[in-house]
Amino acid sequence: MSKQPIVYMTRRETFSSAHRLHSFELSDAENQRIFAKCNNPHSHGHNYVLYVTLRGAVNAATGMVMNLVDLKRVIQAAVLQHLDHRNIDVEVAWFRDHQRVSTTENVAVFAWESIASELAAQGFDQSLLHEIRVDETENNSFVFRGETDVGIGH
Amino acid sequence: MSKQPIVYMTRRETFSSAHRLHSFELSDAENQRIFAKCNNPHSHGHNYVLYVTLRGAVNAATGMVMNLVDLKRVIQAAVLQHLDHRNIDVEVAWFRDHQRVSTTENVAVFAWESIASELAAQGFDQSLLHEIRVDETENNSFVFRGETDVGIGH
Amino acid sequence: MSKQPIVYMTRRETFSSAHRLHSFELSDAENQRIFAKCNNPHSHGHNYVLYVTLRGAVNAATGMVMNLVDLKRVIQAAVLQHLDHRNIDVEVAWFRDHQRVSTTENVAVFAWESIASELAAQGFDQSLLHEIRVDETENNSFVFRGETDVGIGH
Amino acid sequence: MSKQPIVYMTRRETFSSAHRLHSFELSDAENQRIFAKCNNPHSHGHNYVLYVTLRGAVNAATGMVMNLVDLKRVIQAAVLQHLDHRNIDVEVAWFRDHQRVSTTENVAVFAWESIASELAAQGFDQSLLHEIRVDETENNSFVFRGETDVGIGH
Amino acid sequence: MSKQPIVYMTRRETFSSAHRLHSFELSDAENQRIFAKCNNPHSHGHNYVLYVTLRGAVNAATGMVMNLVDLKRVIQAAVLQHLDHRNIDVEVAWFRDHQRVSTTENVAVFAWESIASELAAQGFDQSLLHEIRVDETENNSFVFRGETDVGIGH
Amino acid sequence: MSKQPIVYMTRRETFSSAHRLHSFELSDAENQRIFAKCNNPHSHGHNYVLYVTLRGAVNAATGMVMNLVDLKRVIQAAVLQHLDHRNIDVEVAWFRDHQRVSTTENVAVFAWESIASELAAQGFDQSLLHEIRVDETENNSFVFRGETDVGIGH
Repeated sequence: MSKQPIVYMTRRETFSSAHRLHSFELSDAENQRIFAKCNNPHSHGHNYVLYVTLRGAVNAATGMVMNLVDLKRVIQAAVLQHLDHRNIDVEVAWFRDHQRVSTTENVAVFAWESIASELAAQGFDQSLLHEIRVDETENNSFVFRGETDVGIGH
Repeated sequence: MSKQPIVYMTRRETFSSAHRLHSFELSDAENQRIFAKCNNPHSHGHNYVLYVTLRGAVNAATGMVMNLVDLKRVIQAAVLQHLDHRNIDVEVAWFRDHQRVSTTENVAVFAWESIASELAAQGFDQSLLHEIRVDETENNSFVFRGETDVGIGH
Repeated sequence: MSKQPIVYMTRRETFSSAHRLHSFELSDAENQRIFAKCNNPHSHGHNYVLYVTLRGAVNAATGMVMNLVDLKRVIQAAVLQHLDHRNIDVEVAWFRDHQRVSTTENVAVFAWESIASELAAQGFDQSLLHEIRVDETENNSFVFRGETDVGIGH
Repeated sequence: MSKQPIVYMTRRETFSSAHRLHSFELSDAENQRIFAKCNNPHSHGHNYVLYVTLRGAVNAATGMVMNLVDLKRVIQAAVLQHLDHRNIDVEVAWFRDHQRVSTTENVAVFAWESIASELAAQGFDQSLLHEIRVDETENNSFVFRGETDVGIGH
Repeated sequence: MSKQPIVYMTRRETFSSAHRLHSFELSDAENQRIFAKCNNPHSHGHNYVLYVTLRGAVNAATGMVMNLVDLKRVIQAAVLQHLDHRNIDVEVAWFRDHQRVSTTENVAVFAWESIASELAAQGFDQSLLHEIRVDETENNSFVFRGETDVGIGH
Repeated sequence: MSKQPIVYMTRRETFSSAHRLHSFELSDAENQRIFAKCNNPHSHGHNYVLYVTLRGAVNAATGMVMNLVDLKRVIQAAVLQHLDHRNIDVEVAWFRDHQRVSTTENVAVFAWESIASELAAQGFDQSLLHEIRVDETENNSFVFRGETDVGIGH
């Protein structure tokens, strides 16, 4: 019985959304000072780029960590159908109902939680999820690996 | 007196905007059928990429068609301050006041008209303007060269 | 009655194919000398990038040259279903039945002819087609605009 | 005697290959179901992008982890001459002789093993090798760091 | 006797050079005002990207406009060996001996003249040369097509 | 009191510099042999791409690890004003005064040390700094994470 190599596989997807940076815990003046043009009440938007990385052993028969067809279906259900061609602040419950600011840091955390749940719901091992990266623009990029500030998460 | 080479210079800029595709000349049902997810009333958004191309003779003393510092100032005044971190349908008069649909075709025409005007306003030869290209996503791109369907423009 | 702006719209798609450069008009020795490693009889392959550019007047009601949904369907039927995840020399009749060498020059000509036909077949004006660009690698790119060596084509 | 900084250096190369996803451990029906269009018996192909990352101390005299000229020669001998402009399933012994499926997971493992061997063969410290990344397309990427499912490898 | 399609083929190459923008026709104060940080006497540098486009009929036997192996050799001899890992102002006669400012406009004109000559010197039809594009940075790009301000060149 | 997610945020910047690879610890012959064309005494240059990655807890009120406006100001002061449009060997004290070879390995170490200092000087937690990546060309990339060869640094 031989050891199997462990490989990281990454799928890249894109989505286009409107949003506004505004914190309900801050005054209007503080919001304007901190978020500046991103606080525009009429919203602006981005072509976000999402990278979902799984880490797992390569199956000896198929040569795959996970079938890309399955991973694409998971990402579609967990992230794209909620965020693509949407207004994040108005239409996505995770942000709207909890008054979370739609920074790309938080978009990455949302994608992590949603993909982990969807993997489990579709019968896959949720511990395969290794990293979420979200690029807001070509110059600004954010990564979440399930860590929290008092320990390593999930 | 020697001939000067004619060179095309292109400056690339980016802007991030929210918008919605909706035509006031069409019924709601037609808007939904034609524009589909882009007709979402809560808007979505893009990181647009703008390419402004001038065509002109190279100045023998400076080796330049136009100083890039000047071109960047023109683009900032003509396009970026109006579109970047804005909602195109709500905040840009050229679209809002004339009920123009904010397709990228029309964004390119707006950029052409606005840059041509600004070049003239800042004392430059407006006939230097050769081409506007606007990328809406990495897969969809639009070019305007001042042509109209009954002749070549300006 | 006002003039409509004429805009160039470009859709980018990708396809992954195997092929071999081999000319039936040349000897084996000539094939090896001219095509070198590209003449490998076991084939090699590429991720081709296809850019389809239409040129047309912007519709005043929709703000579009052509609906991207329609253009994507045309490209799928005319090019992608024939070339994507295929061996060009073995599976594509335009190359196989006419013993055409599968250079990217010829891939671009094939895409032009096939898209022009498909536009007409689906009821669109085939004269909208302006340019086909096919990138074979990040360093080698080929463009066809319907021109032939004794005049301007189609 | 001062401490030297440890730096990760990455060299990017490309290669163009044909392949087919087909497992000899699975029935034809299973192969078709799992690999779908990638199971096409006539093969398809890709422009693969390879990233080889070394991790090592910076030499105080040269300011280098390893001379890029040497690393390029190692990659050429270990990977490019075997895979570039080749049919992976037919021409590469590591795949053909062991009936390994030519998934990009396995291409990354092959590149790791081959580069580690070649580093040693050319007199370099094989423990410099830190990571292999292979992009199959712009959307699908795979990383191998020598790990196996019952421990950290090599 | 059938018509042959005319195709544009483009080869992309890169080179890394040092340079300074300084005009001997201008005073030091004017140089500083016009070129600003680019006038730094200690020089700065760029990774230039060069695109060489030929336009010609596709050969019926080979399916090629020109063999890429030949085009690469022409570009190496005409441009890369003169500019790559060089100081343009100090080491390239076309600039140094004629006191031409090393703007990217002029780099494009130099590349055009040098490639046209080299094509002829190696026995190719120099009228194949259609366009030179040089990108100075990801945001600034320059194109020369052999035009001069009192007519269309060569 | 809830746990906060830990996110990695990366800012991308570019700078254009001249440099020469030359070690004062080596003979001229050794310099020529090791650095080859990079040893050209007239210098060459690059468009470097810098990626600065911070790792920290997301602030619950703002949704941010650090305000990008602040991070951009830190990078400007610590790196860009020293390196952009400069000759690294001649104008940057960290290299010139210590006779350090201007390899990209060392550029990354310089950027790490300078950004760590500037973060502290501007009142930010210097332990936020997680990784510096510098791309010298599109094919050669270098990462420093503060590690040294006898332990994990800073």
